[in-house]
Amino acid sequence: MTETLAAEREQAVTDEVVASFDGAGPRLREVLQSLVRHLHGFAREVRLSEREWEAAIAFLTRAGHLTDDRRQEFILLSDVLGLSMLTVAINEPQTPGATEATVFGPFFHDEAPEIPLGGDIARGAAGTPCYVSGQVRDTDGKPIADARIDVWEADEDGFYDVQYADNRSAGRAWLRTGPDGEYRFWSVLPAPYPIPHDGPVGDLLAAAGRGPMRPAHLHFMVTAPGYRRLITHIFLAGDPHLGDDAVFGVKESLVVEAVRHESGPAPDGTAPEGGWAGIEFDLVLVQH
Amino acid sequence: MTETLAAEREQAVTDEVVASFDGAGPRLREVLQSLVRHLHGFAREVRLSEREWEAAIAFLTRAGHLTDDRRQEFILLSDVLGLSMLTVAINEPQTPGATEATVFGPFFHDEAPEIPLGGDIARGAAGTPCYVSGQVRDTDGKPIADARIDVWEADEDGFYDVQYADNRSAGRAWLRTGPDGEYRFWSVLPAPYPIPHDGPVGDLLAAAGRGPMRPAHLHFMVTAPGYRRLITHIFLAGDPHLGDDAVFGVKESLVVEAVRHESGPAPDGTAPEGGWAGIEFDLVLVQH
Repeated sequence: MTETLAAEREQAVTDEVVASFDGAGPRLREVLQSLVRHLHGFAREVRLSEREWEAAIAFLTRAGHLTDDRRQEFILLSDVLGLSMLTVAINEPQTPGATEATVFGPFFHDEAPEIPLGGDIARGAAGTPCYVSGQVRDTDGKPIADARIDVWEADEDGFYDVQYADNRSAGRAWLRTGPDGEYRFWSVLPAPYPIPHDGPVGDLLAAAGRGPMRPAHLHFMVTAPGYRRLITHIFLAGDPHLGDDAVFGVKESLVVEAVRHESGPAPDGTAPEGGWAGIEFDLVLVQH
Repeated sequence: MTETLAAEREQAVTDEVVASFDGAGPRLREVLQSLVRHLHGFAREVRLSEREWEAAIAFLTRAGHLTDDRRQEFILLSDVLGLSMLTVAINEPQTPGATEATVFGPFFHDEAPEIPLGGDIARGAAGTPCYVSGQVRDTDGKPIADARIDVWEADEDGFYDVQYADNRSAGRAWLRTGPDGEYRFWSVLPAPYPIPHDGPVGDLLAAAGRGPMRPAHLHFMVTAPGYRRLITHIFLAGDPHLGDDAVFGVKESLVVEAVRHESGPAPDGTAPEGGWAGIEFDLVLVQH
């Protein structure tokens, strides 16, 4: 068989599969036909071997068996392939002045407690006390009162509560902004950490010579009626991994200085023994 | 932000992820960089929404949880997206006269028993007795003695043994060809059946208006030292689903006539009560 015939034979497979989705509704048809074209384009471009196909099936199977309520290997996979950040980029509102978004990540869960304005999200997580404050407003500068801010973070050892086997809940909570859109809470200074790398995604990174580290960050999700939900991080200036985040989440506008205070009181009057750090960061939402 | 700026922002994500694999070995680098380009190309082309991304994560998670020793939802997914048949096409030797290959499918397992030449692979599977015979040879016409033939099939109700909850082993076995490459065995006439469609892959087919049916077939895997492994099916002429196989596996050269005999003896002298069917099919391997 000539090369042309082989190419025609392969194209015929793709055409048949694309046509099989002709009967789907408009959006599903668009998505699935594009998916098939690009998936087949990939397999043809790299001349995917049967052994590689088998390895892909085994990879997904292993990822599936590792995934549970506390571990999400498919989100990690999307993250390290940059699909998560690309999806953020595709969907991010193109409004000047809005706070930039970044990856959601696999560690959010929706059973975090509410804390009062000025409360402590650390709730026992280990680390240097960190006072975080700022304002939630819109792109016109209007303060947004009563916005909900979910915050979650790793402790100083680089682990989220869900990564411990003891079912603890720590380093996560939510609060509401005050009348002038202001927010403030105590947390701990987050540490850089490796994404969970004892599974297939970790093996992929290792095989490809990539590191699993993420620079230190605090996760934010901010919601308010009439505004687009914002999912973002605060990164810490000076972190050694700002340049090689395993999930490509760093944006310059999200890197802030955590000011260290060896002693003395924080703005709310508390003076943690051993000092504290202060972060100021405003969150700017986009109207629907 | 202008559309051009948005496109540049998205391209920057793709470029950064592609570059992150620069340090991988040559083949892994080729595969992963191509995968990223095509995956991102898909997401950008369809303007993938965050909700659709979440649906994809949930789909893979559900597929992973359904997959076990007896159910392989990721192979089904590959099958219904035509990736399995495309991989077959990419890897199939382009040698005139060789038996064409088709999908492996999710129902093989390697604990089937050996049977003697002329034995019965049905081993209790329900259906019309079917006598299958032919020769294994190479593309020069040389008979291949002592080749191993693995056969597996659904019963007349359209189920493989592994789909029953009672741990039965039936409708699968392996045998070796005789001195002149000849093979013969008893089986049952296979029936058309739906691929397992009570999971996410079934939901996808239903949402897209596609049927889950496969035309009746017998699976073959033929191996012999010095020859390329052949994985294929025999399909039955006249099957109503030859034109809409859910996994795109049908090839004209693999469709054979099952000749019905209402009574009388098969070539080996047995005369099953109620009659039998006969299939003749030669299997032509390609030398390494």
